[in-house]
Amino acid sequence: MTRRSAVPPPVTAVLDASSRWLPARLGEVERLLREQSGAREGPLGEDAGATLAAGGKRLRPMLVLLCAGPDGEEAAVRAAAATELVHMASLVHDDVLDAAPLRRGQPTVVAISGRERAVAVGDLLFSRAFALLAERGDGRAVALLAEASSALARGELAQRRDAFDISISERRYLERCHLKTAKLFECACLLGRDEASLAAFGAEIGLAFQLLDDVLDVSGPPERTGKARGTDLLDGTVTLPLIAAAEIDPGIRAVDLRTLGPPAAEALCDRIAASGALETVRSRALATIAAAKGRLDSPAFDPEQRHLLGLLADGVVQRYS
Amino acid sequence: MTRRSAVPPPVTAVLDASSRWLPARLGEVERLLREQSGAREGPLGEDAGATLAAGGKRLRPMLVLLCAGPDGEEAAVRAAAATELVHMASLVHDDVLDAAPLRRGQPTVVAISGRERAVAVGDLLFSRAFALLAERGDGRAVALLAEASSALARGELAQRRDAFDISISERRYLERCHLKTAKLFECACLLGRDEASLAAFGAEIGLAFQLLDDVLDVSGPPERTGKARGTDLLDGTVTLPLIAAAEIDPGIRAVDLRTLGPPAAEALCDRIAASGALETVRSRALATIAAAKGRLDSPAFDPEQRHLLGLLADGVVQRYS
Repeated sequence: MTRRSAVPPPVTAVLDASSRWLPARLGEVERLLREQSGAREGPLGEDAGATLAAGGKRLRPMLVLLCAGPDGEEAAVRAAAATELVHMASLVHDDVLDAAPLRRGQPTVVAISGRERAVAVGDLLFSRAFALLAERGDGRAVALLAEASSALARGELAQRRDAFDISISERRYLERCHLKTAKLFECACLLGRDEASLAAFGAEIGLAFQLLDDVLDVSGPPERTGKARGTDLLDGTVTLPLIAAAEIDPGIRAVDLRTLGPPAAEALCDRIAASGALETVRSRALATIAAAKGRLDSPAFDPEQRHLLGLLADGVVQRYS
Repeated sequence: MTRRSAVPPPVTAVLDASSRWLPARLGEVERLLREQSGAREGPLGEDAGATLAAGGKRLRPMLVLLCAGPDGEEAAVRAAAATELVHMASLVHDDVLDAAPLRRGQPTVVAISGRERAVAVGDLLFSRAFALLAERGDGRAVALLAEASSALARGELAQRRDAFDISISERRYLERCHLKTAKLFECACLLGRDEASLAAFGAEIGLAFQLLDDVLDVSGPPERTGKARGTDLLDGTVTLPLIAAAEIDPGIRAVDLRTLGPPAAEALCDRIAASGALETVRSRALATIAAAKGRLDSPAFDPEQRHLLGLLADGVVQRYS
């Protein structure tokens, strides 16, 4: 249940279809991100700047902007940047924990600057996210983002607590996905517009995103994902593909994840794939995306907004097709 | 420039003198801290709860409450708790970096739960601080705390960047003290009451606090400080006692901090003490406390408030007398 991928942005379709306004708005988000990551502070912000420059899919800012719509004000741009800052902070801290050398094909902050600075860089990005929202005194936005970033940390704690326990339940896994991934997607949507069906849409595509990420960790191929197969297994992170495979092939439960080396992890990936569990999880993700898109069938959304959010939802799947 | 001490609370005098209202208000802060540290979440919040239970001097919450005065509303109690949560988050993250086994005589989160969970616990405490302030939609308070927590992270980055560089300037050191310590004290005061002279008071006692902490690292004795002498030197953290000693005894500049072992660190402490630099730094801290107290000589403060804030300022010194 790591949240990385070297796959290029899946969102070209969204950008093309919204050439009227979204690219310009995303440009403003990038400018804010550069500012907030400390470019103005010279060497102090260097590490944070490197993190941002490494890029990313900017899915969460897009959600904020698309939910706010073309008439979204500057508040939407700020909220979009703040959401991405929290996401990046969590990635920087994740990399500290995993001592990951690369993310998105670029050296991580922890690899460049060491663990000490990487922890502080993450803290700086978190703080800046809240500073950005607070500048305009938007208490509701701060409360939403604080809840989502609190969920991220709780998800991380839950993941560490469950590590190497092959018997965790599907329910527990889904709870973790909710905390670690879905909650920030949901928050992004609510920051764009206060609307319950958008919150559900965000949470569902967040869940689908995580399910597919976890499939990818097992299926590879490494040349597309940029990491070895079974990285989660080696970290002791038990995800739905493993849980579902163990239902079908109970012998899997006897595996001790703590003693797993890279070749055994690859072999376990093959065994999970052979069980058919990857198709089960993939179908579930697709059904979740379909349910998410169904939330948009409401007069509350104009056709363009529905179309663009639908494309974004499809983009989450296309990463893996 | 670590910020720890095993010395008991220096604030008994403040509590005694304000028996009318402060202890009850601090009790409410403790209750909020327990709530926010995740007791309600069972095992998830365990680590965070351990951090809070280990206690501390609660200097920052006291500053908020004293600046707000006896008529301070619930907002002051929330701000007091939020400030302490940010402080604790930064301590938990500092301990991750130093892999410190003990703080305030209790095992650290990193020692109990490992680095992975400690990073997440710090993140959780940070998030909860902002959630607490945002619940009432207080944008000004969020902006102040975000700026202070951003300063903490920048101070940490500056400290890592300057590590082992014996030639850093006094100005650079003071800048670091401002970011790592004074800024949160200043923020605490401003959260209590929006008043420039209180901001200056807070920044000054924060600086004095740090100066005296840095003296203590050199002077010990370990049985009072709960840590070996020269811990900062071993970390490569160059503080004012060392900078001032090198002015008087230039031979010190030839020391390579990177190669320092514990016995050589103790010897360097003796050499710093022999130079008279500790008295210089201590006098400076006392002068800073006096200047801080001078800020209160204004009709803007009633006699009780002036008295209690003065006692708190004196408490910072008494820790070390």
